[in-house]
Amino acid sequence: MASIGPVTPQQLHFAEPLPLQSGAVLAGYTLVYETYGTLNAERSNAVLVCHALNASHHVAGLDAQGNAGWWDNLVGPGKPLDTDRFFVIGVNNPGSCFGSTGPMHTNPATGEPWGSDFPVVTVEDWVDAQARLLDRLGIAQLAAVLGGSLGGMQALSWSLRHPQRLRHCVAVATAPSLSAQNIAFNEVARRAIVTDPDFHGGHFYRHGVVPARGLRVARMIGHITYLSDDSMEAKFGRQMREAELAYSTQAIEFQIESYLRHQGEKFAGYFDANTYLLITRALDYFDPARGHGGSLSRAFAAATAKFLLVSFTTDWRFAPARAREIVKALVDNQHDVSYAEIAAPHGHDAFLLEDPRYHEVMRAYFGNVAREFA
Amino acid sequence: MASIGPVTPQQLHFAEPLPLQSGAVLAGYTLVYETYGTLNAERSNAVLVCHALNASHHVAGLDAQGNAGWWDNLVGPGKPLDTDRFFVIGVNNPGSCFGSTGPMHTNPATGEPWGSDFPVVTVEDWVDAQARLLDRLGIAQLAAVLGGSLGGMQALSWSLRHPQRLRHCVAVATAPSLSAQNIAFNEVARRAIVTDPDFHGGHFYRHGVVPARGLRVARMIGHITYLSDDSMEAKFGRQMREAELAYSTQAIEFQIESYLRHQGEKFAGYFDANTYLLITRALDYFDPARGHGGSLSRAFAAATAKFLLVSFTTDWRFAPARAREIVKALVDNQHDVSYAEIAAPHGHDAFLLEDPRYHEVMRAYFGNVAREFA
Repeated sequence: MASIGPVTPQQLHFAEPLPLQSGAVLAGYTLVYETYGTLNAERSNAVLVCHALNASHHVAGLDAQGNAGWWDNLVGPGKPLDTDRFFVIGVNNPGSCFGSTGPMHTNPATGEPWGSDFPVVTVEDWVDAQARLLDRLGIAQLAAVLGGSLGGMQALSWSLRHPQRLRHCVAVATAPSLSAQNIAFNEVARRAIVTDPDFHGGHFYRHGVVPARGLRVARMIGHITYLSDDSMEAKFGRQMREAELAYSTQAIEFQIESYLRHQGEKFAGYFDANTYLLITRALDYFDPARGHGGSLSRAFAAATAKFLLVSFTTDWRFAPARAREIVKALVDNQHDVSYAEIAAPHGHDAFLLEDPRYHEVMRAYFGNVAREFA
Repeated sequence: MASIGPVTPQQLHFAEPLPLQSGAVLAGYTLVYETYGTLNAERSNAVLVCHALNASHHVAGLDAQGNAGWWDNLVGPGKPLDTDRFFVIGVNNPGSCFGSTGPMHTNPATGEPWGSDFPVVTVEDWVDAQARLLDRLGIAQLAAVLGGSLGGMQALSWSLRHPQRLRHCVAVATAPSLSAQNIAFNEVARRAIVTDPDFHGGHFYRHGVVPARGLRVARMIGHITYLSDDSMEAKFGRQMREAELAYSTQAIEFQIESYLRHQGEKFAGYFDANTYLLITRALDYFDPARGHGGSLSRAFAAATAKFLLVSFTTDWRFAPARAREIVKALVDNQHDVSYAEIAAPHGHDAFLLEDPRYHEVMRAYFGNVAREFA
């Protein structure tokens, strides 16, 4: 399948302050975004793609460094989300570290980088910021909002906060809230970061260091939860790096150790520590039932979109049972919902991979969405 | 049920060097141990209890500080492992930090604490050290070796290395080797410790500090893997500490965060960092099939003991499927094996808890063992 080819990120500045869930306000901010395909004359074929923890606006095509977007296998000409038919928008969320206003940028109040003073942002705040971007792009209603994992939470939140502005909500490998275990893993990762002496209370920029030790550990923990036990076993098992054991507590003995250390190293080289804290916290906080006495069904009463939910059998981070909670809440409200539980071996990561059954579901669904305006 | 009451640890010094799996040798060493009950005239009623990661020789009864042993609910007068009938021995393994020779003790070659120069010890090395303790206690053959988790691996190893010295092997919540995911969690914990600047390459003793940041993170990770997702959900769920969210990345918002931080803090206050590295490595290395072309069945050909294996349905660290691998290898050899898969909600930690079905299995099995010498 053809790729979109080179894409160029764009940016827009928003002077109007963004009121946040916390009660704080984000003064002027910039959003970086990319678009693929062409907005039709009726402005009815736009699909917003929301990113997860360590992704960005660069959803598809090739950036200036030649890197393919994180969902390039799904989004492009002739692909399940077909850019010959849809106008697709990827946007980097505020608080992230890929161009939109974040903790590494200057806090106008101090003239210094925000650091840990960057306001805590939530899924709802991101959705509101994305809505303003659509205002500026002149898009009153989206054909669909699509996201996986934390991106799926944003898609769900769109259906609740701006129900009239989307016709379809496609939420993949997601959950209606984090479980205690999910929060626990986030908390360990955060503790690893904030207790790294190079964190400097979140103001490490001025010290010319990054809390790389903490970021490495955080990423290693995260990575374990993204893979299934089985796929890790199939890929690494107990494979050793050398034929003979070194009998060392610090040398690498097993290939899985080498892999994890490499992932940690790579991540610490490009990801911002304050962003990691903010984004894991946004995950923790997401809980649309909370404002409705704990009832997810009552929360989804406000929705009017049609829904596609997709989960993966081996995803133990956001297991199918969590997706089914959402499906149940939608059915309770007699909403139009399709649900696919994909037998895939790759754990949570499956949502980013090119599983044929998964992609056929996505292709069929977006094919139907396209028929509404074709 | 009555407790054993106050118990006093004993210790023995072993002047003869212990050859280790690594090829290194542990020169003179001391083992700390406790015993409960009375050795019968035939010396046939002894049961050795092997400890897991953060436990010790203090299996049952009350120590000088009044702390109950870690398996006090199982071991005592009238309890499933009945000290009115059995002579029970708990021993702290070399490399540990509860009295037996370990990294915090003086390396005779340098006059300084061993630190990270303490030789890497394996499950097999521990079993050999335990066998020497039995020699000194005048016990030629044990009625049983019992252990859970890493202790279960020691019980299994006993049946392979010293088959004539035990009549029964009781291995609970254990596995024939770590999976890639198990190793991965260990490796993250080790990285958290060794990259803590207070680790000082394992020679932190001379700096008067401990790598508490790393130990806390290591313990938090471990703790998540000891509990089941369901029991964590039942116990903590999304319970908040305060009625209102603080919108902070570092404040405690959820009770699970508070619980984990507390566990990490407590652990860092008493556990030795070098011991943590050594013991997680011993877990990684355990793999009796390795010397038999990867065949666990061939490995267990040498065993002559009778076996009881117990697993817990919600244990995702050492899932029932791993115990069944052991059962299969034993059945392949036509060994006498009983297997109980206990439906219990508490995850890996279940082996330490007083589940009635679990304890009934243990009581019945040890009752049969006692009948052999009664």
